[in-house]
Amino acid sequence: MTKDETIGKFLDDLASERPTPGGGGAAAVMGAIGAALVSMVANLTIGKKNYEAVEEDLKAARAEAERVRAELTAAIEEDVVAFNSVMGAYGLPRATDEDKAARSAAIQAALKDATLAPLRAVKACFEVIVLSEAAADKGNLNVISDAGVAVLAANAGLRSAALNVYINAKAIKDRDFAEKQIAEVEALLAAAAEKTEAVYKVVRDKIGS
Amino acid sequence: MTKDETIGKFLDDLASERPTPGGGGAAAVMGAIGAALVSMVANLTIGKKNYEAVEEDLKAARAEAERVRAELTAAIEEDVVAFNSVMGAYGLPRATDEDKAARSAAIQAALKDATLAPLRAVKACFEVIVLSEAAADKGNLNVISDAGVAVLAANAGLRSAALNVYINAKAIKDRDFAEKQIAEVEALLAAAAEKTEAVYKVVRDKIGS
Repeated sequence: MTKDETIGKFLDDLASERPTPGGGGAAAVMGAIGAALVSMVANLTIGKKNYEAVEEDLKAARAEAERVRAELTAAIEEDVVAFNSVMGAYGLPRATDEDKAARSAAIQAALKDATLAPLRAVKACFEVIVLSEAAADKGNLNVISDAGVAVLAANAGLRSAALNVYINAKAIKDRDFAEKQIAEVEALLAAAAEKTEAVYKVVRDKIGS
Repeated sequence: MTKDETIGKFLDDLASERPTPGGGGAAAVMGAIGAALVSMVANLTIGKKNYEAVEEDLKAARAEAERVRAELTAAIEEDVVAFNSVMGAYGLPRATDEDKAARSAAIQAALKDATLAPLRAVKACFEVIVLSEAAADKGNLNVISDAGVAVLAANAGLRSAALNVYINAKAIKDRDFAEKQIAEVEALLAAAAEKTEAVYKVVRDKIGS
């Protein structure tokens, strides 16, 4: 499991000529970093003086953030599985017409999975962005910059995962399926961009910068 | 060293109520992810057919990316050291006027270090953004999305580190020093935003999305 590797080894593997881990895994890590920082802000706000009124909201945000963090940590692996499945399908025999038909069907099925996996990461990152808003609006002022880092990490993860949706959707023959996933990503990208800049502004205003 | 910890433990520590690692460490990790992905694109382009003409450029980009990656990996630790130094200074005795003057001087010195450390991370992330441009312009089309993820990670790292510059600069009494660092960050933030969107567009155009 990638999460059991050291950060140094993950970065070395990322930099290497091996195709995985790659941008898909990096996207999931960034989303997970965002979720972890939402929890950090919540943990440093809950139980603190002057923050009693927002305690229940931040407990709820923390519970959601921990759930999404687990999802995004699992997504690091799902990206590898999806990539290997596409490569495996391309490697199937194509000696006979029957082979070719089976190979093509396997490729198309693998590409659909490899489109849905990053789409789940896009959605999870969007959830982190929404949670960052709660952290920025209600979190302890002493750690408000961490809410800003949370939203930036989550949005970078979202836009990165979106690139993987586009790439895999492009080669899918079932265009209705492909266009449906792309439209979903486009809507989330636009909403995420707007919300991210709004949260970053809240944080900068609170810092007074 | 944080780089010798597992990704799972780093995320758990980030999420915990401990103040470090926090947003500063997360910023450095994101920058390092960006640098690693520039190297990945270079590694999967160098020696490949049809990419002979850009081989030397990508070898140079890879060498730079590996240098900056080492710098950003070290920056994860520097953030912890800078934070502890500020906290240590605030914890100094203030019984006498002499104590108070020494404590205030120690705080101010620590704040300057804690402003310069994330500023170095901002500059390193900016270098990664510039290198991502080379990866997106000249890299192997099969891994072009990784150049897109590289630039997004680096820009998120840059904007995140910038928040730490602002926070620490705010409490510095030497306003000439503080304003100088802030002005440098502002200029890099603006240039980074423009370049990041340009590189992301190159990548999306090449993917055809």
